[in-house]
Amino acid sequence: MTEDDVKQQLAEITTELFHAGVITATGGNISVRCATRHDAAWITPSQIFKRELTPDQMVMIGMDGKKIQGEFTPSVESVYHASILKHRTNINAVVHTHAPLSIVFGLCEMELIPITAEAIFMSNIPMIPWYLAGSNELAVAVEKEVSRTEARGAFLRNHGLITIGETLREAADATLAVEHTIKILVTCKLVGKEPTEILADAMKFLIDYEGGA
Amino acid sequence: MTEDDVKQQLAEITTELFHAGVITATGGNISVRCATRHDAAWITPSQIFKRELTPDQMVMIGMDGKKIQGEFTPSVESVYHASILKHRTNINAVVHTHAPLSIVFGLCEMELIPITAEAIFMSNIPMIPWYLAGSNELAVAVEKEVSRTEARGAFLRNHGLITIGETLREAADATLAVEHTIKILVTCKLVGKEPTEILADAMKFLIDYEGGA
Amino acid sequence: MTEDDVKQQLAEITTELFHAGVITATGGNISVRCATRHDAAWITPSQIFKRELTPDQMVMIGMDGKKIQGEFTPSVESVYHASILKHRTNINAVVHTHAPLSIVFGLCEMELIPITAEAIFMSNIPMIPWYLAGSNELAVAVEKEVSRTEARGAFLRNHGLITIGETLREAADATLAVEHTIKILVTCKLVGKEPTEILADAMKFLIDYEGGA
Amino acid sequence: MTEDDVKQQLAEITTELFHAGVITATGGNISVRCATRHDAAWITPSQIFKRELTPDQMVMIGMDGKKIQGEFTPSVESVYHASILKHRTNINAVVHTHAPLSIVFGLCEMELIPITAEAIFMSNIPMIPWYLAGSNELAVAVEKEVSRTEARGAFLRNHGLITIGETLREAADATLAVEHTIKILVTCKLVGKEPTEILADAMKFLIDYEGGA
Repeated sequence: MTEDDVKQQLAEITTELFHAGVITATGGNISVRCATRHDAAWITPSQIFKRELTPDQMVMIGMDGKKIQGEFTPSVESVYHASILKHRTNINAVVHTHAPLSIVFGLCEMELIPITAEAIFMSNIPMIPWYLAGSNELAVAVEKEVSRTEARGAFLRNHGLITIGETLREAADATLAVEHTIKILVTCKLVGKEPTEILADAMKFLIDYEGGA
Repeated sequence: MTEDDVKQQLAEITTELFHAGVITATGGNISVRCATRHDAAWITPSQIFKRELTPDQMVMIGMDGKKIQGEFTPSVESVYHASILKHRTNINAVVHTHAPLSIVFGLCEMELIPITAEAIFMSNIPMIPWYLAGSNELAVAVEKEVSRTEARGAFLRNHGLITIGETLREAADATLAVEHTIKILVTCKLVGKEPTEILADAMKFLIDYEGGA
Repeated sequence: MTEDDVKQQLAEITTELFHAGVITATGGNISVRCATRHDAAWITPSQIFKRELTPDQMVMIGMDGKKIQGEFTPSVESVYHASILKHRTNINAVVHTHAPLSIVFGLCEMELIPITAEAIFMSNIPMIPWYLAGSNELAVAVEKEVSRTEARGAFLRNHGLITIGETLREAADATLAVEHTIKILVTCKLVGKEPTEILADAMKFLIDYEGGA
Repeated sequence: MTEDDVKQQLAEITTELFHAGVITATGGNISVRCATRHDAAWITPSQIFKRELTPDQMVMIGMDGKKIQGEFTPSVESVYHASILKHRTNINAVVHTHAPLSIVFGLCEMELIPITAEAIFMSNIPMIPWYLAGSNELAVAVEKEVSRTEARGAFLRNHGLITIGETLREAADATLAVEHTIKILVTCKLVGKEPTEILADAMKFLIDYEGGA
């Protein structure tokens, strides 16, 4: 993979997530580690309309979140993207969205019921209280809860969702899987019955399985 | 930008908003200030099916809402589009839609809870009671509530939504952001819990920030 | 317009309504009067997957619903399509779908509250009880309720929706407008408040306006 | 039809079901009997992102679920796909998805009310309790409930849905029809009224009709 390939994939997946309704016009930002160096990443630019990003609009940042290369300003959330990529060397992509059902999940302090294997695998996503987007406080909280843990991402209360992955595809899929699971949980509320949980034995098996993978 | 570019973008964004479900077959109209003169604007035509508008179907209107140029009849709501563009010289686009969740918001007199930064930025959108589409009464109300204020648009009870922007992209994004926020508020209702508000201090900060931007 | 144009538009609008989620794989059928003769119409074929219909799969039927021309079997509902086109000479298209919210509207015997101008214009759509698709009983009921009245279509309880129009575009738009309005009514239920009605005076004005148009 | 045609259709319908929201990034798998031999089938590969599958990524399996040909690992659920195709010689395609409303249907133990003809035709879909995806226990349960019966598929509690068909188109359509029907049932819950059932006589007629078809 060349840097051009990385930027192309970054543009395509941003567009995909826009059409999935989880990235909004100016809400959401995505980063992916560079192809040719480990200590830098490409990130989406600040402010520009997210549906139509092109590869040449992406910005290269260092492990401190500061711009190395590119015409535009990097996302205001660059610091925590960089923090995750710096501390977790097997993670290569970070996806932050304004995924609406994930926002509801945080706003309503919903319980993550182990309804499916996907829901169980989601249990390692902590909730971070609200801090201003782009603030140092938010970056510190993400470093504490995601960069220095084994968490699979974080819910940002009153704001959105972060997911991570070894590849950009995996990080984006994790966002979609979280939304899919919360959609099921919310629809169960509508039906007015508590959903059936996976059996306790099965849940233990799945957690162990995941832990050892 | 040429006038042709403006009309092209007007057609594209109308189609985009149709596919987003906020403009219906014959419900909704959009205007954008001309490229080469400040005292006129292009607006979508009346009655024609909104999904397939072409640039040459757009109509040029003056600051009184009357047709200057074009084959078709301008939207019946031309008067208030013109009124906003006349009085607010830094605004260059007006988007009126039949956005379904914005209609629900008005019909049910929902409270705009400050759940996210987007919701706080939305707080400056007044509610206008129902008047007949295209009527003088509606134009007068929009002039009073939007043209002569700093409002970011207006909810039209029993009817739809108006948003505005310095660019057409910004005005369209504002419509989508309003729908996104109300979707979250409505889904919280479904879950049956009051959503967590942003902290009072943070809200003050965001309002001040926005006020000063 | 040639017959080929008519068949082309019939195929395109069937596909459009499939993607809108109101026509299902084998549920729904559409007819439009021929371009070159008043006593015949093109209708979608029976059974064939509805997303990918091509113009040459359309079937010409007479005013009795029987096939005049075409390779495939006409829709099992041809009789009532023909009945509407026979008796209402200013109507040129009939759209029958399995529109999900229209089905809910009938199943739950929801009240059509005059929440918007579109809702008021919808008030002239009667409810027909369930009869077997393609049965003589259903054709008789549609003839009584739609063909020999000024109705704008019919809800088919436990089944779907019929809308009609002077053009195929108009008939398809009417289906989408009905779904849009019921979506708003259903979402109001979710919010848990009775929606605000349009003022009684306004409603009278709109009904008179419509009556005289 | 050649084997290439079969694999092409398998790729296209997988993509279609991904966009319909019932197949997720790595959730769901589809098989279809080979064109040139009755004792083997093409199945989607394990793990690979499901939106972008290409024909050459498909895997040929035998009637024991084991790989015969292909670069990738076959789906972990190959055993029950093969079991259905082995025992039910008139069935040629099996579609397993993580269809969200079907999952809700199982989680909430919803009742399948005979609201439409489609709902009645769905009544022959048993519920299978949760077993680990790819496990022998799941394969045994599917063999008992689907392979050796006249069932039209199975709900997999805490997991998803299986539908089958004489053709791949028919099996995919059955999945979409189940989701469409449950969407209606769930929306009725939201409205807060019990939906009207089809008359008992009509239901008997439809069941007999289906039985004899």
